[in-house]
Amino acid sequence: MSIEVIFGQQLRKIREERKLSQEELAFRSKLDRTYISLLERGKRRPTLNTIFALTAQLDIAPSELVRMVEKNLDI
Amino acid sequence: MSIEVIFGQQLRKIREERKLSQEELAFRSKLDRTYISLLERGKRRPTLNTIFALTAQLDIAPSELVRMVEKNLDI
Repeated sequence: MSIEVIFGQQLRKIREERKLSQEELAFRSKLDRTYISLLERGKRRPTLNTIFALTAQLDIAPSELVRMVEKNLDI
Repeated sequence: MSIEVIFGQQLRKIREERKLSQEELAFRSKLDRTYISLLERGKRRPTLNTIFALTAQLDIAPSELVRMVEKNLDI
């Protein structure tokens, strides 16, 4: 599985744990809802800036989200 | 300071600690040398995939490099 697919899965997991809709996360992180949907489906590669913008609204450190991707990539 | 500028500083710091030239890191990570130079000067925003490609050659976990950026951003 690719890095962006695993990232998307982890992003969705955290968003749902926080009981946020894509619309709510988009509004809070000043990103477009369709972009969040594309990220969650692994169709876009997030920049570090996007990761910081999203995680700031999800109450998780950017490095923690990246670590979750690593764990699922067996790194 | 912006995320990409801090990222660039940390990337250069690790690369130099590992005594690698930009050329050598570019060759190993299959990226273009000028792109690495742009990243180190904060002129480009790295994707998560680029971070994984670079850190694989720098013997540091992607999340660790992101954590270094966080620390310097006071997150």
